Amino acid sequence: MSSDIEISQATPLEPIEKIAAKLGLTPEQIEPYGHTKAKIDLPLVAPKQPGKLVLVTSINPTPAGEGKSTVVVGLGDAMNQAGHQTVLALREPSLGPVMGLKGGATGGGHAQVVPMEDINLHFTGDMHALTEAHDTLAALIDNHIQQGNALNLDPRQIVWKRVIDINDRALRQTVIGLGGRTSGVPRQDGFDITVASELMAVLCLSEDLTDLKRRVNRILIGYNYDKEPVMVGDLKVGGAITLLLKDAIKPNLVQTLEHNPAIIHGGPFANIAHGCNSVLATQTALQLGDYTVTEAGFGADLGGEKFMDIKTPVLGKTPDAVVIVATIRAMKYNGGVKRADLETENLDALQQGSVNLKRHIQSMQQYGVPVVVAINRFTSDTDAEVAALTADVEALDVPVSTTTVWADGGAGALDLAEKVVAATKQPSHFTRLTPADADLMTQMTAITQKIYGGAKVELSTKAERQLKTFAKYGWDHLPVCMAKTQYSLTDDAHALGAPHDFTIHVREFAPRLGAGFVVAMTGNVLTMPGLPKHPAALDMDIDADGQITGLF
Amino acid sequence: MSSDIEISQATPLEPIEKIAAKLGLTPEQIEPYGHTKAKIDLPLVAPKQPGKLVLVTSINPTPAGEGKSTVVVGLGDAMNQAGHQTVLALREPSLGPVMGLKGGATGGGHAQVVPMEDINLHFTGDMHALTEAHDTLAALIDNHIQQGNALNLDPRQIVWKRVIDINDRALRQTVIGLGGRTSGVPRQDGFDITVASELMAVLCLSEDLTDLKRRVNRILIGYNYDKEPVMVGDLKVGGAITLLLKDAIKPNLVQTLEHNPAIIHGGPFANIAHGCNSVLATQTALQLGDYTVTEAGFGADLGGEKFMDIKTPVLGKTPDAVVIVATIRAMKYNGGVKRADLETENLDALQQGSVNLKRHIQSMQQYGVPVVVAINRFTSDTDAEVAALTADVEALDVPVSTTTVWADGGAGALDLAEKVVAATKQPSHFTRLTPADADLMTQMTAITQKIYGGAKVELSTKAERQLKTFAKYGWDHLPVCMAKTQYSLTDDAHALGAPHDFTIHVREFAPRLGAGFVVAMTGNVLTMPGLPKHPAALDMDIDADGQITGLF
Repeated sequence: MSSDIEISQATPLEPIEKIAAKLGLTPEQIEPYGHTKAKIDLPLVAPKQPGKLVLVTSINPTPAGEGKSTVVVGLGDAMNQAGHQTVLALREPSLGPVMGLKGGATGGGHAQVVPMEDINLHFTGDMHALTEAHDTLAALIDNHIQQGNALNLDPRQIVWKRVIDINDRALRQTVIGLGGRTSGVPRQDGFDITVASELMAVLCLSEDLTDLKRRVNRILIGYNYDKEPVMVGDLKVGGAITLLLKDAIKPNLVQTLEHNPAIIHGGPFANIAHGCNSVLATQTALQLGDYTVTEAGFGADLGGEKFMDIKTPVLGKTPDAVVIVATIRAMKYNGGVKRADLETENLDALQQGSVNLKRHIQSMQQYGVPVVVAINRFTSDTDAEVAALTADVEALDVPVSTTTVWADGGAGALDLAEKVVAATKQPSHFTRLTPADADLMTQMTAITQKIYGGAKVELSTKAERQLKTFAKYGWDHLPVCMAKTQYSLTDDAHALGAPHDFTIHVREFAPRLGAGFVVAMTGNVLTMPGLPKHPAALDMDIDADGQITGLF
Repeated sequence: MSSDIEISQATPLEPIEKIAAKLGLTPEQIEPYGHTKAKIDLPLVAPKQPGKLVLVTSINPTPAGEGKSTVVVGLGDAMNQAGHQTVLALREPSLGPVMGLKGGATGGGHAQVVPMEDINLHFTGDMHALTEAHDTLAALIDNHIQQGNALNLDPRQIVWKRVIDINDRALRQTVIGLGGRTSGVPRQDGFDITVASELMAVLCLSEDLTDLKRRVNRILIGYNYDKEPVMVGDLKVGGAITLLLKDAIKPNLVQTLEHNPAIIHGGPFANIAHGCNSVLATQTALQLGDYTVTEAGFGADLGGEKFMDIKTPVLGKTPDAVVIVATIRAMKYNGGVKRADLETENLDALQQGSVNLKRHIQSMQQYGVPVVVAINRFTSDTDAEVAALTADVEALDVPVSTTTVWADGGAGALDLAEKVVAATKQPSHFTRLTPADADLMTQMTAITQKIYGGAKVELSTKAERQLKTFAKYGWDHLPVCMAKTQYSLTDDAHALGAPHDFTIHVREFAPRLGAGFVVAMTGNVLTMPGLPKHPAALDMDIDADGQITGLF
């Protein structure tokens, strides 16, 4: 069996100008990065009416991986095969994890976006620009303190950490500014991975350069000795930080293995941020394609909910259909099967675990949007299992389709494509979960009850105290962004299936004023991953001709 | 008077394919990055005989700046105007200092390489790739220690620090690995600016991907508990680190304001490294142009000497002429005039300070290469001053020419161009300063006496002890790379002019085994700059149309 990179390397790519032409873009409207990648110049001239929007989300993922990105790519190719002009809008991967354990985030098998090695490595430099912008701001903050501290910043209350696009656990907690008078003011600090930067969320929610600068200026960097908040605007460096993102704000264009256009841009976490590609990328896809297929991170409870509640109001467009990706393996895992036994047929566990899928179907239906289920078939799935899950979903009057895109590319999702296109023609009556001006507690309770299926929200003493402070600054009516484990509907990663009557515990809040939301932290969310005992880097190589091995 | 960025923005650029065509490169032989930047695919097919090589260096620079890069760009344009097909080979600037004090490193006035804002910001991502590669290696080292430390690495003896392309003094000295068992092993660490990374020197001395990987593998990362050296190869991550540099190794192509080709690639420091653009860039320029004009960092005592002694053996080509840039202001400064009084005519001080220029002329002549002096004229220089310095140099039988490239572009260096072309037709008998197998002490003594004009070299106790250790590993016959202040021929920044009988004090050595040299540290060399009280970032902005202000 060929690996993803072997399949990717075996397919000759089309010149990016040719892909752009499929979207009606002239060579002057794109900025090439090599021969198979480009940035799209914004704003688009004379955009057409926006096309239909399809959001792909999933059940709670398992550590085994559900192949959501692979289904997204395969669905897009299938829709194009069926004659529906379709553009993908995807998140761009972080480089850090590539050196660690995980495969890339570019799909797999015959459903990939390419050139996969470039997309997984430096791509068009967006992540590096974000790292540079984030850490330039950090340096300017420490320099301000060092050079007289006119803003009276309290070094113990700086909330703007540093970032790096590397899995580097040794940088999680640091002490900086050592070395005496000329080398800064000593204080406790730490590094997150770049995709966890608020700037990533800011970039992904910005409508244009002006909006980006406005958002950058209102980012909270810390508090002064009087406990008052201090923003980037107070430091007067919003222009410089925005300038560093002048190219990063432009969406990137690549192709699928079947030479269909894919716009890949931005990739915030789906726990401490909203988990969707940029608003500009989705808008561009909507303007250029009859159909846009996009995805949101983790399951419907995280990325799905955030797409609806955080991204949709900024995007100005709601999904015409939602696809929920499920796997037989994940249903059995949710039904109590150990990871090692997932390849053995087990209809009982499948039946038990499918409550997770049903909960996600209900959640998404509450938004008034047609739902379709895609079963991403693995070779170990038995026909009986697939038939059982299909019947289960059909009993809910929800269209369901089995896909084999890893092996077959777009041809493995033609039936899904047909069902999705049909769904987008159904009436869609988008309904918000809560009114636009609901306070944080109202929003969290609605999400807990209507999306997670839980009972109530409990605040720690610290979180309660924060809510009072936030009220003073008007931050208590911002949209909430729930940071929760992706493995469970609850805040306990081990509570699988579809638990009832549980409580969501909010440890603390983090105001992300540039992004325009408040993160509610439940449990510990790791914002700097570590490398494993045998990092993937040890098996990577490049030969004299630039041929890469060990990247997957 | 227009600023550099205003002049740059007012000039319409030619498409990079057109610039490539001037070099005989087809669109397939370059990888565009936007419409006005590209990488050149290597190896070049059917290269022609290498052209003539002109090295531009300077007197000891002053804090006021001598405009060496501006002269290089103007000279290249002048040679092209005069009908000599000329390619520039330049260093690429670091982003960090751009946010601080200094102007960019892309020339000035009407002698610039463009697009200056892109070249000064993220350019084609080389610096970011180096940062990522450097810090990935750092993370892999700490992860190795964390995950069992099979190599028995001593955390107190890790010599591979971290880097970032930002002036961030607060990161000079840090403690990392705090936070308990799962967050690494606590140890003292620190960040350098990216251009100080050994990987930068390695990239700039590599002949191809294979050579790059070989050099990466032999980089010293630290010592084990038995005090034995440990290399990247021992960690088995040379392939992964090289892979991260697969695009960064390719030279970048841009244009001057007069639309002549400029290859800009790599920018190591000229104190702790060798201070020249990449060997691949110079080789490419030599293959594509009849003339290549290149530069080396700081004065002839630093970059000039290193070009001759470190770069030339790898390049396989010696300069056909050397241009030494001098300014009236710098001569007066070296003659004792305070910085505030440099704009007042002072023929005595000029005469006194010109000993600095004469010393550099002698140094470069020792290599057996024709020397030409370029006086980079500033508006405050009087005719009498220019005439006096010209006469002084002519008395040495050295061709001298006054340039006004800032104001006039290539037209301001036509006379210089003629003299330089004439010089390259003179016989050149390149002579090494010391034999290829000379030991460190022999090399340092020769540089001190023949280049600096000093008497002898003194080692600290630590440096003496190191020399003994190095002998054990065969490192004592590697080329030496002198890290010394750029402001003086001595190791004391305040000793101006051309001092005699002084001693160079070597504090310690740093083996840079990947680069293939040993750095001799004299005095303190700052490898992480800080930001000033009023950083340039505060005055930068970008408007809704992407128009940039405050970058210079």
